[in-house]
Amino acid sequence: MTATDSAFVRAALGQPVPHVPVWFMRQAGRSLPEYRALRAGNSMLDACRDPDLITEITLQPVRRHGVDAAIFFSDIVVPLVALGVDIEIVPGVGPVVAHPVRTLGDVEMLGELDGLGELTAARVPFVTAAVRGLVAELGDTPLIGFAGAPFTLASYLIEGGPSRDHARTKALMHGDPGLWHALAGRLAAIAAAFLRVQVSAGAAAVQLFDSWAGALSAADYERYVLPHSRAALADVAAAAVSAVPVASAVPVVPVADGAPGVPRIHFGVGTGELLALLRAAGAEVVGVDWRLPLAEAARRIGPGAAVQGNLDPALLLADWPVIEREVRRIVAEGRAVPGGHIFNLGHGVLPQTDPDVLTRVVELVHSL
Amino acid sequence: MTATDSAFVRAALGQPVPHVPVWFMRQAGRSLPEYRALRAGNSMLDACRDPDLITEITLQPVRRHGVDAAIFFSDIVVPLVALGVDIEIVPGVGPVVAHPVRTLGDVEMLGELDGLGELTAARVPFVTAAVRGLVAELGDTPLIGFAGAPFTLASYLIEGGPSRDHARTKALMHGDPGLWHALAGRLAAIAAAFLRVQVSAGAAAVQLFDSWAGALSAADYERYVLPHSRAALADVAAAAVSAVPVASAVPVVPVADGAPGVPRIHFGVGTGELLALLRAAGAEVVGVDWRLPLAEAARRIGPGAAVQGNLDPALLLADWPVIEREVRRIVAEGRAVPGGHIFNLGHGVLPQTDPDVLTRVVELVHSL
Repeated sequence: MTATDSAFVRAALGQPVPHVPVWFMRQAGRSLPEYRALRAGNSMLDACRDPDLITEITLQPVRRHGVDAAIFFSDIVVPLVALGVDIEIVPGVGPVVAHPVRTLGDVEMLGELDGLGELTAARVPFVTAAVRGLVAELGDTPLIGFAGAPFTLASYLIEGGPSRDHARTKALMHGDPGLWHALAGRLAAIAAAFLRVQVSAGAAAVQLFDSWAGALSAADYERYVLPHSRAALADVAAAAVSAVPVASAVPVVPVADGAPGVPRIHFGVGTGELLALLRAAGAEVVGVDWRLPLAEAARRIGPGAAVQGNLDPALLLADWPVIEREVRRIVAEGRAVPGGHIFNLGHGVLPQTDPDVLTRVVELVHSL
Repeated sequence: MTATDSAFVRAALGQPVPHVPVWFMRQAGRSLPEYRALRAGNSMLDACRDPDLITEITLQPVRRHGVDAAIFFSDIVVPLVALGVDIEIVPGVGPVVAHPVRTLGDVEMLGELDGLGELTAARVPFVTAAVRGLVAELGDTPLIGFAGAPFTLASYLIEGGPSRDHARTKALMHGDPGLWHALAGRLAAIAAAFLRVQVSAGAAAVQLFDSWAGALSAADYERYVLPHSRAALADVAAAAVSAVPVASAVPVVPVADGAPGVPRIHFGVGTGELLALLRAAGAEVVGVDWRLPLAEAARRIGPGAAVQGNLDPALLLADWPVIEREVRRIVAEGRAVPGGHIFNLGHGVLPQTDPDVLTRVVELVHSL
């Protein structure tokens, strides 16, 4: 078996699997004592730019839980920081942007920050180094590349930090569509490049995180966001063709729509009304939160795509019988989805989660 | 015309209206300079327990905007505070509970706090006084009574304050259903009593706010929340029959399902998957956020109910042509809903909203 023939990649491509693959969003993170130990004394952004820390943090949950995939440890603002945008990740708050983007001049500056207006592998050497090292270490376990989607990135840049209502972002989107599209287009190119670097270095799949897309109506998503998320995902196929993996030969597996075999996962929280559009952006797999059953999610997504999800992360704080009942229900529902199912949570692991429970969930999913 | 024959009440009961009625959630609040002036030096809880302040704050947006209904100025924790629960509303944070409810003992204490285990009008004399005064002042403009729903109240009590993931609440709900139902049942009785006091004093309608119900799957909502929200709404009819309004005779208008003419509005953010269940709890009107079009919302809610909504409050920060386009679209969509439409936002007015824009929206809705 190779990473590209793993249960995870096979499920993502809608192929038969030996067992239901499972990983957890934010599996590399604060639920693990070994993560908290490594992070002590390192800021989030420092950790995200150190190949050794990235590698170790990415590997920790794979070793501990036996999950079917690793997720590249990073933060959605890392490519922006690499381009010189002044962003700090404030503990307990999130990314804080020193100079929020509010004018066309701001957007143009963003386009010129790296001199070439483009994120290149040379701007994020730690990414290439870490991915190469990880692919060698991981062997048969696939590595999922990671990037933030244009809407979520834009919201941080416009609001200046995390926002509950995204009011300035929506006002700008509707009130100055030209400026919005300039900004979102620029961010799509950055997200695409960030994914391309990871795939070129050997990532076997990618996930585009549009954490906050669920704040939008379907009409607004389709008009203002979909074209840019589609652009962000479109380049992944081309990058895969030129990839030179370190650890193993990666056969290019064709998928239904003709893209090479680097499945693209697209996810946002609270996106029940957007699932078909998340798929339309060019995803082989659509992530689903816990708000609707997988069968209904698959119906909305349409045929030919796999689903990923969808255990409510809050339920991992309940007693084991509750968790076991929910895991069994979701695996059974996932089996009925013709396009394939990857078990995951409906959002990231909560920091207060007992990591032993996560391990037990992996064992249970694999046993079913 | 009387309050109970107003465009607002008529629309809520699915009857023909002279114009589309409009009000705004959180219209009595920080968007108004006259509100900020009145609140200066008064804590939120003090304001919510002073009949003169309640009256004045409730009237401010009616005077300024010419909305079709007043919403009783209060906070969802007011009835809990009246029962002796130690809660502080911390500016910029929200309600903070001194002793979160985690055991059956906590719930029993909650049931015995007022000696009788029941919220009576005598515990909230400021509510009766304010509602009576308001009804007299408002004349033909209906007053909407206000209460928080059991799930949202329970989440505050269990988490100890506002929560993004409601993890303890969900863990308790699933892990100890007996304790959950004891707590939610107690909160349903409190919410019902709080509404009953307002209706008995002359409120022409009520809205049950389940701000956070959208965090739940439909299956969990149906099992753990619906019975309690239904109980909270069930008593309103009985209260209406015994109401002795001050300003005008209130004819009892029968509605489709036989309840007297005090329409019940049920609302939560992000509840696209729960709309039919919000209706099933016993609402004549279901509030809809901006995430899905009114036609689709009405389809999910089913025949015989009115819809309320659903302009994205963030869009009030855009330029007027954007707002006008969206208002016209929503009014047109609402006209196509057979059960009736009350124009509103999809969530509360944002504090940074220009109040003149709200006035202009009212004028526009009335002109269409």
